[in-house]
Amino acid sequence: MSHLCIESQLLSKERQNVTFPIEELTNIWDGGREETMIRRRVEKLFADDPELKSPPLCTMTRDEEFTEATRKSAYIYRHFIPKHKLYPSSRESKHLTRAQPLATNLFIHMGVFVYCIKTMGSDKQVAKWLQLAKNLNIIGTYAQTELGHGSFLRGLETQATYDRTTQEFVINCPQLSSMKWWPGDLGVNANHALVMANLIIDNKKYGMHAFIVQIRDLSTHKPLPGVSVGDIGNKFGLGSTDNGFLYLKNVRIPLENLLNKNAEVKPDGTYLKKASDRLVYGSMVNLRVSIPKQCTDVLAKACTIAIRYSGVRRQGLLKPDGAEVPILDYTLQQHKLIPQLATVYATNFAGLQIQKKYEVFLQNLSNDDISDLAELHALSASFKASVSEQGTEGVEVCRRACGGHGYSQASGLPSLLARVTPACTYEGENTVLYLQTARFLMKCASKKAKDLPKSVTFLVQPTQMMNINNVTSLDFIVHCFKSRATICVQAAAKRLQQTMGQGVEINEAWNKNAVELVKAAKAYVMQFIVDGFTTFVKGLKCSKPTKKIFEDLCSLYGLHFINNNSGDFLKLGIITAHHCNLAEEAEIELLGKLRPNAVGIVDAFDFSDFSLDSCLGAYDGNVYERLFDMAKLSPLNKEQVHQASYKYLRPYLLEGRDILEGSKSKL
Amino acid sequence: MSHLCIESQLLSKERQNVTFPIEELTNIWDGGREETMIRRRVEKLFADDPELKSPPLCTMTRDEEFTEATRKSAYIYRHFIPKHKLYPSSRESKHLTRAQPLATNLFIHMGVFVYCIKTMGSDKQVAKWLQLAKNLNIIGTYAQTELGHGSFLRGLETQATYDRTTQEFVINCPQLSSMKWWPGDLGVNANHALVMANLIIDNKKYGMHAFIVQIRDLSTHKPLPGVSVGDIGNKFGLGSTDNGFLYLKNVRIPLENLLNKNAEVKPDGTYLKKASDRLVYGSMVNLRVSIPKQCTDVLAKACTIAIRYSGVRRQGLLKPDGAEVPILDYTLQQHKLIPQLATVYATNFAGLQIQKKYEVFLQNLSNDDISDLAELHALSASFKASVSEQGTEGVEVCRRACGGHGYSQASGLPSLLARVTPACTYEGENTVLYLQTARFLMKCASKKAKDLPKSVTFLVQPTQMMNINNVTSLDFIVHCFKSRATICVQAAAKRLQQTMGQGVEINEAWNKNAVELVKAAKAYVMQFIVDGFTTFVKGLKCSKPTKKIFEDLCSLYGLHFINNNSGDFLKLGIITAHHCNLAEEAEIELLGKLRPNAVGIVDAFDFSDFSLDSCLGAYDGNVYERLFDMAKLSPLNKEQVHQASYKYLRPYLLEGRDILEGSKSKL
Repeated sequence: MSHLCIESQLLSKERQNVTFPIEELTNIWDGGREETMIRRRVEKLFADDPELKSPPLCTMTRDEEFTEATRKSAYIYRHFIPKHKLYPSSRESKHLTRAQPLATNLFIHMGVFVYCIKTMGSDKQVAKWLQLAKNLNIIGTYAQTELGHGSFLRGLETQATYDRTTQEFVINCPQLSSMKWWPGDLGVNANHALVMANLIIDNKKYGMHAFIVQIRDLSTHKPLPGVSVGDIGNKFGLGSTDNGFLYLKNVRIPLENLLNKNAEVKPDGTYLKKASDRLVYGSMVNLRVSIPKQCTDVLAKACTIAIRYSGVRRQGLLKPDGAEVPILDYTLQQHKLIPQLATVYATNFAGLQIQKKYEVFLQNLSNDDISDLAELHALSASFKASVSEQGTEGVEVCRRACGGHGYSQASGLPSLLARVTPACTYEGENTVLYLQTARFLMKCASKKAKDLPKSVTFLVQPTQMMNINNVTSLDFIVHCFKSRATICVQAAAKRLQQTMGQGVEINEAWNKNAVELVKAAKAYVMQFIVDGFTTFVKGLKCSKPTKKIFEDLCSLYGLHFINNNSGDFLKLGIITAHHCNLAEEAEIELLGKLRPNAVGIVDAFDFSDFSLDSCLGAYDGNVYERLFDMAKLSPLNKEQVHQASYKYLRPYLLEGRDILEGSKSKL
Repeated sequence: MSHLCIESQLLSKERQNVTFPIEELTNIWDGGREETMIRRRVEKLFADDPELKSPPLCTMTRDEEFTEATRKSAYIYRHFIPKHKLYPSSRESKHLTRAQPLATNLFIHMGVFVYCIKTMGSDKQVAKWLQLAKNLNIIGTYAQTELGHGSFLRGLETQATYDRTTQEFVINCPQLSSMKWWPGDLGVNANHALVMANLIIDNKKYGMHAFIVQIRDLSTHKPLPGVSVGDIGNKFGLGSTDNGFLYLKNVRIPLENLLNKNAEVKPDGTYLKKASDRLVYGSMVNLRVSIPKQCTDVLAKACTIAIRYSGVRRQGLLKPDGAEVPILDYTLQQHKLIPQLATVYATNFAGLQIQKKYEVFLQNLSNDDISDLAELHALSASFKASVSEQGTEGVEVCRRACGGHGYSQASGLPSLLARVTPACTYEGENTVLYLQTARFLMKCASKKAKDLPKSVTFLVQPTQMMNINNVTSLDFIVHCFKSRATICVQAAAKRLQQTMGQGVEINEAWNKNAVELVKAAKAYVMQFIVDGFTTFVKGLKCSKPTKKIFEDLCSLYGLHFINNNSGDFLKLGIITAHHCNLAEEAEIELLGKLRPNAVGIVDAFDFSDFSLDSCLGAYDGNVYERLFDMAKLSPLNKEQVHQASYKYLRPYLLEGRDILEGSKSKL
């Protein structure tokens, strides 16, 4: 457009006022200048490929969305990735998740099914299936969760009974509640399933094992005898994925279909355990580390949309001169949005610390040293829980901060919400994860400092009051969070012991004190996030203005949390009412400081319009024209007169016409 | 079913353990025994009518949902209501909203368009249009919000310029951002719109007025010349409503189409103001009073679903005997769900107090006494804001408490969330409403107690410490909330004055202190809710066990809030750290007390399975069979092999077949 609308002009003005080098921030976000270049190259490949264009997501039915997703996914894995050599080993592969267009599928097939074959299969099994799976010659799913069973793995009911006479396993779901439910890619596309089932040999149970079960005919793609499979229906989001159900009735699979790297069944029915399940834990951690990063990226997108929109949406008068001001000028709007930006930063850079710990763990693992596993597991569990919750809340804050337009699918915000919130539940329901972390913390609390990993010794040491002259100081903020974690962990441990001292059985004692235990786990992970982000900020080498942005965001993250949860800090004697007042004032002041750079900070995330897929969040700020153009594509506008009006209302409207036009009714 | 599944048996057991008469609670909820009877009769009429059956909402596309909604709505207004004489004047009409099946539309037509004609039209105008509208001979919408303008009414841009020569108004949207946007029933069904536009006569502006504009042809239903109209596209929920856009370019309407009860334009262009806009305020309050009730009902449904499901969903071991327990036995699940029940009760019964105030106001209004308007407005504004927020949060808590199944549309929970959350934005965005309440509170703070309505004198009186021996005592809890409100209001007033004392202009001073001002408004409305519910509970005459339920829910509501916001109470010196600990323990104890009656309490809401529309929440608890039956209806299961798999994956799968079956590839 040659003629710039007022909204675009407003965003340009915002950008002129930015006080730091945006490109520098982008490089830090990406992990270095070179990473930025690689990422941009990958994103351009996706954005430029005409095969990866789809109609806007918000105009499609579920069926259309799923169909498009299957088309694009098949194209990506069979053509796009080989063509551009974007293999897992390449430097580019790191950026694939972010660059991937919206609405694709086959994630469970490519991410989990393939991974499981690789890690749980013997060499022979890998040789047989791995390449087939990678080439989409077979499509698999990971079938663990059952209709009646989720987090409690020992409760799973599906059985694999060994039949020595035929050297086969017979797979059965004993009842309705044992049906596999939710696995992605299962409902429609998969013709194989990696089924987690209780292994039974001669009436003896050997626990959960992984079996490859063919579920659809290789030629016709119709379900095999004994197999009942389908899509579980519409969900809150996730329309492109065919989450499925799978009911297996006397389905026989050959002996060789038990993935047997770690455990084997001999033809005569002898059971052989070959290795511990360590690696499995490691891979669970791996998955959990990747989820927070996805949540953070979704929140970063929501911030980009809401902050750009707030820079162009004008409403109400602040100054007597009578011009309407962008809503980003309102303290209340800043108070909603800028802390979300701080959350993106805090969770992203604290996440890098877990990533590092994970890499160290993998190194140690190769030396059979798993001493870090307990801490890593506790940390990654509560970190996944906390980040998914903060992400979900943050996206919803951003969505509602956009007023009415935040309800339009065209804003992109409802679909971001639907993308982030399932992370609260999958790969470990958050409450269950917090309790797992609490278990680790209670073990720590019962030990001496010298017997603990260095990173958690503070939990068993006395907390100290701190002399405070500046509530925005990062040292003070970290101190507050560490003290809170220590006190909460010790208090929960004490209460747990007291309860058990009264003769209450352990499970029941945990249940009685569960609210406290979860609180301790949350306090622990929050101190980790604040500490991790602070450590990153302090060590960061960059220009002064950029450093200032980081410091302000870091203070804001801590203070915003303290202000919203001041009771915890006050009650425990970590801060005083006076500090509270200072912290509240300091937060408002920080918002004012960050506000002129808000658009610059979201620009630095460097999301393309293609990946934002939002009428409110595009780079040029031309929101109203985009909304109008998108509205015209509404499925309800296909005909000038909708069938429903014609069929159900027109008879009455014709009566109205006759009355209004003064003629007698002819109906 | 003759054979009861284990889940149904579990719910029966829950019901056997209930300690209070459920029917009595139902009667109190409905407002009396007779009201329960009437409501049940009305609900049965709806449930039994075969014309009002639809395919499950969760299996439909947006277009199908809209089409069904239009069909059912036309049937309800033209056949069902007249047939059963469910007119607005009937006793039954009060129960229509609750009894109405899901996915209907024409609410804005019937609720707002009709209402506006009645209240803003002259006798002649009422005679011309009212009956036509009621009979669906014309379908109207209420077109106020514009693409670029929401809460700030003075910012609206649409113009109605009087043309004396033809005695017409010329309606124009001067630019893209002036396009009407969001009005319900507008996009597809309406052929008339009540357009709010700036009246201009001889270049002089007279402010916003209401004009009836015909937008579609009465015979063909096609848009008239100069009219651009359509659906705005898919939204977060609200699929059955055709929220629309409307762009008007030189559309001419006759002089008589200005609704002129309160203001008139003479043919020569003379403008006559006939009455104040008082009534309009009254009707705004009316609408705002009805929204919280709807939010409360949605939350009650979500509680019903989540609590029944938690009574049948079994997971993990609590006792050494090894049987899995229903998740409702877990303190953490109780801690999520039972406070939501308390919220339903608190907001419902506090809402009755506003209803009463409103009725008094209407009586006074007929005597031209509007002295209560300011308080009523402030109260209803913040009450709408608070209840919609609590409802949204509560539904989301319920949804997530159902684990994976809470993401299935079949659970009914995502659609309840999508139904409640828009209430945070429509009819006054919540933040804007809180600020309106704050305006009233700041006025109060500047007055002496004797010059204030009795209900708010506490705001300007000194707070006192209270001697506490029991933190669950309702008097203590009310005291806490009242003290907090007083201190917050006074603090905000003081800060506002300080800022203005520094020479800051008033709008800017408000902006600087907006976070404090909103906090004051929230504290004010929370004390109203706690006080209102407490007053109701204290005055309630019923059996002892039922009374106990009310008292426990009332304490729980207050304590849960205090525990989640303890900083506010601690900081202000209302409670001590010791009280905090007692309050936390008391909350857990209350949860344990209420738990055995939880299923009974939700049963007492008496929602039919038809109106819950949830596989997880049906009365009999047979959740897994329902989920499976619903899954089979998934749009993706229409064909045994989906087109997408066939078209995009089969070529690769055939390669796989050839490799696996050992034959050479024939492709």
